[in-house]
Amino acid sequence: MDVRAAIAWKAGKTLDLGTVRLEGPKAGEVLVEIKATGICHTDEYTLSGADPEGLFPAILGHEGAGIVVDIGPGVTTLKKGDHVIPLYTPECRQCKSCLSRKTNLCTAIRATQGKGVMPDGTSRFSCEGETIMHYMGCSTFANFTVLPEIALAKVREDAPFDKICYIGCGVTTGIGAVINTAKVQPGDNVVIFGLGGIGLNVIQGARIAGADKIIGVDLNNGRKAMAEKFGLTHFVNPSEIGEDLVPYLVNLTDGGADFSFECIGNVKVMRQALECCHRGWGTSIIVGVAGAGQEISTRPFQLVTGRNWRGTAFGGARGRTDVPKIVDWYMDGKINIDDLITHVLPFEQINEGFELMRKGESIRSVVVY
Amino acid sequence: MDVRAAIAWKAGKTLDLGTVRLEGPKAGEVLVEIKATGICHTDEYTLSGADPEGLFPAILGHEGAGIVVDIGPGVTTLKKGDHVIPLYTPECRQCKSCLSRKTNLCTAIRATQGKGVMPDGTSRFSCEGETIMHYMGCSTFANFTVLPEIALAKVREDAPFDKICYIGCGVTTGIGAVINTAKVQPGDNVVIFGLGGIGLNVIQGARIAGADKIIGVDLNNGRKAMAEKFGLTHFVNPSEIGEDLVPYLVNLTDGGADFSFECIGNVKVMRQALECCHRGWGTSIIVGVAGAGQEISTRPFQLVTGRNWRGTAFGGARGRTDVPKIVDWYMDGKINIDDLITHVLPFEQINEGFELMRKGESIRSVVVY
Repeated sequence: MDVRAAIAWKAGKTLDLGTVRLEGPKAGEVLVEIKATGICHTDEYTLSGADPEGLFPAILGHEGAGIVVDIGPGVTTLKKGDHVIPLYTPECRQCKSCLSRKTNLCTAIRATQGKGVMPDGTSRFSCEGETIMHYMGCSTFANFTVLPEIALAKVREDAPFDKICYIGCGVTTGIGAVINTAKVQPGDNVVIFGLGGIGLNVIQGARIAGADKIIGVDLNNGRKAMAEKFGLTHFVNPSEIGEDLVPYLVNLTDGGADFSFECIGNVKVMRQALECCHRGWGTSIIVGVAGAGQEISTRPFQLVTGRNWRGTAFGGARGRTDVPKIVDWYMDGKINIDDLITHVLPFEQINEGFELMRKGESIRSVVVY
Repeated sequence: MDVRAAIAWKAGKTLDLGTVRLEGPKAGEVLVEIKATGICHTDEYTLSGADPEGLFPAILGHEGAGIVVDIGPGVTTLKKGDHVIPLYTPECRQCKSCLSRKTNLCTAIRATQGKGVMPDGTSRFSCEGETIMHYMGCSTFANFTVLPEIALAKVREDAPFDKICYIGCGVTTGIGAVINTAKVQPGDNVVIFGLGGIGLNVIQGARIAGADKIIGVDLNNGRKAMAEKFGLTHFVNPSEIGEDLVPYLVNLTDGGADFSFECIGNVKVMRQALECCHRGWGTSIIVGVAGAGQEISTRPFQLVTGRNWRGTAFGGARGRTDVPKIVDWYMDGKINIDDLITHVLPFEQINEGFELMRKGESIRSVVVY
């Protein structure tokens, strides 16, 4: 079938809106009509050429929501008409990782997903005979896409696509980092570095988990009001405190944070996030994605005296199991997504959505088909 | 009273055997007759001058066992004749750290201990009018010493001093890293870097915890036989495997170690220890003490994909609570200490004990008074 898509022909170029050919679902695959998709920094990271593993040409986009329109042979858990959220971290429930009960990082289709193809080693997308690669196993910048059954979370049908698409990445990453990875407990003090879309979701995760002090660190004072709406109790602008940030935060948390979250992707900030943690038990979670080749460092004494350095991907969430619950939380008013989606654009304006993100004018732009 | 002591007058000098003046115990303090003491790398680290926080002149030694001979006012949990092991990590059971239930790093007397004095800010040791500093709150290189009540573990009286002194540091650090910090579970695969005294105790901790593969990494093939006696299942000499160490270990553990332990103090090895851990959940524990100012580093991707970087001090053990249990384990034959104590020397030969350690000829030398 012919589908509308925003094609990333090469690094550094704007997306090219056009028509591409999409083959139907093969065994274990599902054809999904994408109704809405968010634009995430990770799409921009790849599109810019900064990602050394980026493949072109490709259909980017990994934060979508849509409806099942066809299923391939052997698909048993989804049917036509089901509402779904694509999962760039699948959940096969069969591999060593899924069965370990210790991680969400399913490895069932990791090798082929990283190569931009379906599990059988081929792409479903092409344009005038040229193969177009899939992206993060999702490719939501097309109004129809094909995904493996294990990479789709079935969600309730009364949830609006233009809001719950954000649960496919940012919302789950932020809330999950708190609930699944850190396991923040009532009364804990937490520090969040970077109050963009991920940081704001970490804040509401911390609020849900019953944290006491929820301290946000950002150089932009304009982030304060929105962050407070999501549960922030203390705003810290490092350029305005008149002293070094780490001892300031240690003092503010009476000895150090129980948990800190780095939501920027800056390796120097990752070090500060670790070192502001409480001696003996404070745990720092890396959420942000650093540039290629960059390294974190610290003195081992920081760890020997009891701080823990960890990270999270997709908020430690098992997509098929946890994403439907987060959709319920949104529908029940337990979490706020509406205020995070600052722009809703028609598909034709997807490049404007990228521009809004680059300028820092949006928290999240969503494109609707 | 006059006591026999090995005095560290200045960095880089051998210990000077002589007589020093010891004041009796003040409020909350206890006078202990030291019957035996181990010689640890940490004593050498300070004596060599490499420790930037080393103070001189001082009575070194922190791995002892002895008998209470007097108590100061207010001491309620110990009496004359009690057998005790000095604790460089005390356990007050009152401070924020002790009450947290999350760490063994009691902070009750941290400030004064680091300055080489008792909690009232003064030293009990002097020589011809000159103040001699305490060391790690213990100073077991004297046949009598004074310690705070909270820095003494009461142990059973049938346990031999020249063996259980080692529980005051090395045994507890190694076994505790496995049991208290890592919480290794039956069936886990573990990798230990450095098969000296600490590494061998990590091995027997892993054996007690029911680990499957217990893999030891050391450049010295001479370590293999002893390590196997303690529970090692696989010996790896990095210079003999003919490939890079990290992928070799990942392959040997079917995807990576569940837990790894760095027992050397080498920051490059600490990175290998992290990176050989299993994606999704593998945890690396830093046990070794790195040189002053050295830093660890890695790509944050290692943590974002689920590896955890942690450390341990005194094996995460709460001294007064856990050390008596480890003495019981020794007396019950559950752990092996005898084979680790390769040399027992009279006090007069303490400098020979240091020399044996420097040459790598001993696992542990114990000095008896």
